[in-house]
Amino acid sequence: MTSPATIPIALRWHGDDGGHLEILDQTLLPTQLTWLDCRDVDTVVEAIRSLRVRGAPAIGIAGAYGVVVAAGEAVHAGLAPEQARAHVLSRAEQVATARPTAVNLRWAVERTVAAIDGLGAAAAVALRSALLAEARAIHEEDRLLCEAIGRHGAAMLPPGGVLTHCNAGALATGGAGTAVAVITTAWDSGRRFEVFADETRPLFQGARLTAWELVQHGIPVTVLVDAAAGHLLASGRVGSCVVGADRITACGDVANKIGTYSLAVLAAAHGVPFYVAAPSSTFDLTIDDGAAIPIEERSADEVLRPLGATVGAPGAAAFNPAFDVTPARLVRGIVTERGVIQPVTRQAIRDVLGPR
Amino acid sequence: MTSPATIPIALRWHGDDGGHLEILDQTLLPTQLTWLDCRDVDTVVEAIRSLRVRGAPAIGIAGAYGVVVAAGEAVHAGLAPEQARAHVLSRAEQVATARPTAVNLRWAVERTVAAIDGLGAAAAVALRSALLAEARAIHEEDRLLCEAIGRHGAAMLPPGGVLTHCNAGALATGGAGTAVAVITTAWDSGRRFEVFADETRPLFQGARLTAWELVQHGIPVTVLVDAAAGHLLASGRVGSCVVGADRITACGDVANKIGTYSLAVLAAAHGVPFYVAAPSSTFDLTIDDGAAIPIEERSADEVLRPLGATVGAPGAAAFNPAFDVTPARLVRGIVTERGVIQPVTRQAIRDVLGPR
Repeated sequence: MTSPATIPIALRWHGDDGGHLEILDQTLLPTQLTWLDCRDVDTVVEAIRSLRVRGAPAIGIAGAYGVVVAAGEAVHAGLAPEQARAHVLSRAEQVATARPTAVNLRWAVERTVAAIDGLGAAAAVALRSALLAEARAIHEEDRLLCEAIGRHGAAMLPPGGVLTHCNAGALATGGAGTAVAVITTAWDSGRRFEVFADETRPLFQGARLTAWELVQHGIPVTVLVDAAAGHLLASGRVGSCVVGADRITACGDVANKIGTYSLAVLAAAHGVPFYVAAPSSTFDLTIDDGAAIPIEERSADEVLRPLGATVGAPGAAAFNPAFDVTPARLVRGIVTERGVIQPVTRQAIRDVLGPR
Repeated sequence: MTSPATIPIALRWHGDDGGHLEILDQTLLPTQLTWLDCRDVDTVVEAIRSLRVRGAPAIGIAGAYGVVVAAGEAVHAGLAPEQARAHVLSRAEQVATARPTAVNLRWAVERTVAAIDGLGAAAAVALRSALLAEARAIHEEDRLLCEAIGRHGAAMLPPGGVLTHCNAGALATGGAGTAVAVITTAWDSGRRFEVFADETRPLFQGARLTAWELVQHGIPVTVLVDAAAGHLLASGRVGSCVVGADRITACGDVANKIGTYSLAVLAAAHGVPFYVAAPSSTFDLTIDDGAAIPIEERSADEVLRPLGATVGAPGAAAFNPAFDVTPARLVRGIVTERGVIQPVTRQAIRDVLGPR
């Protein structure tokens, strides 16, 4: 019944306390599998900024390990306890602000840093050891969250084809993914259905990453240009849309990869239920309205020079927000590790998330 | 007030009866301006199939000149009158079926061929001469149609930014374009507004062609990935959408570049009026329902291997319809050379088009 699934890995800690962070460079997929060794914080920050590691949960875990890397810098520099702690805190802030939209990054960095709160004047090696234990715990928890999200999502997945956007898979998390875990879990339980992946311009995460993961998993996948989603939905071949999230507000507004909002509007226009799958760490209950979520604007070259080629006419400008906000009213349900929030209301969100 | 507009040219007849068709190879824009000499029908058909010339009116004109090229083949082969006519008719059919969706292609080919209906047993040179005169007339008429469409469209263009999809500009016609003519005519009359161009995957006609035309015209243009249209519309910066058409049915359903339907749904969801600009030759009154329009499915490589690079994961399939159908209810008005059809109803279409 179940297929021998190969779950790709987005990142891993290599070795023990004296080890380093390894990040699978996703900008080179699907043609090259290259691991990037991160032995200093600058490399971690660059990897996050350049989307070598991306996906809200995965950059959270990268951020957590990034704090460990910061402690490693303190060890190698021979910093005294007080300087070591100051160094870790300062570098942690750099990591936390590497990208603005996903709330998981700051959440994971702050949780990791909190692991040394009670350590007083501990030496740098002790800080590093405590930070690594916490980062590993976050990573392992994320793996379990993905499993639970896959399970809850598969149980509610409507009949028909499934359309997803961007990559909310193993490469975006510390486990089997969020939206992709819903698909793979349903598939592994024996259900069969068409799977469609928006290519997701400008960076093609759907074509490069989601399609790659599904092929690895043995699940047939069909890629479409983002603008073809309306025509596909009108054909009746799609029974549900499932996407990930970078930040979800208290009212259920969802920030996710640019194009998610367009897809949600199209799904609603065709009566196709639109689901978001995300761990509870993706919720930011300090923000109510999605309009308050900071939206990262990325370089014009991503639009005008896809794959490095001169495609946009020289002299043209570009509009390149990395994310958009889908209002809660367009979201049929939010699949979390604690269950499915449906319908999406403030109260239902509070009920499922419970005390934080 | 008016800018010194440079109108790009999609194609031209070089020389007199013994001349040949020159097509600007749009697959090489915006980096190279290369003219393709067409001295045989196979070259014309390949240019149409490969989108070296594209846009419903422009491929109509290319088709008309293609019939002249067929007569030239007959002249060079020294065919007798009867064989020459048979050759022209047979080659004309090849030209007419080079692409299936745009109705202008068959319309222009048939109109050109009709020019030799009354010529009986005329020699090949006489056929060629009559065909060239008709093709030139179609070309010149299209130039005037574009002017009229620009004028009618500019007069009704609502305030605010204008968003267009694909390329319905000079490169798509024998004149100043259709949707782009609306923009340039309004601009040249002194109005100022933001202009946005969807990049239009898979072949980037918006980024490569529309942006290039507008830059040439001195109009600032901002390119966005297609999926960002929802976010842009939600921002309130867009006052109207204007696109071209490849075929319009008797009830006003519109076939146009893939993604047009998605954009029309998004525009409706944001209360932004959605206009189609097209000459009356784009109407196919033999078809009522858009579902009856044949939709060209193009190669998976256009999606999976953009710009020749391996982007889609090996093993993935692709869904690549070249067009979609926008139902009349989503179209606020259709700008033709005879005026604006608004609201879009069967009766209003008949009233404006009159007897054909």
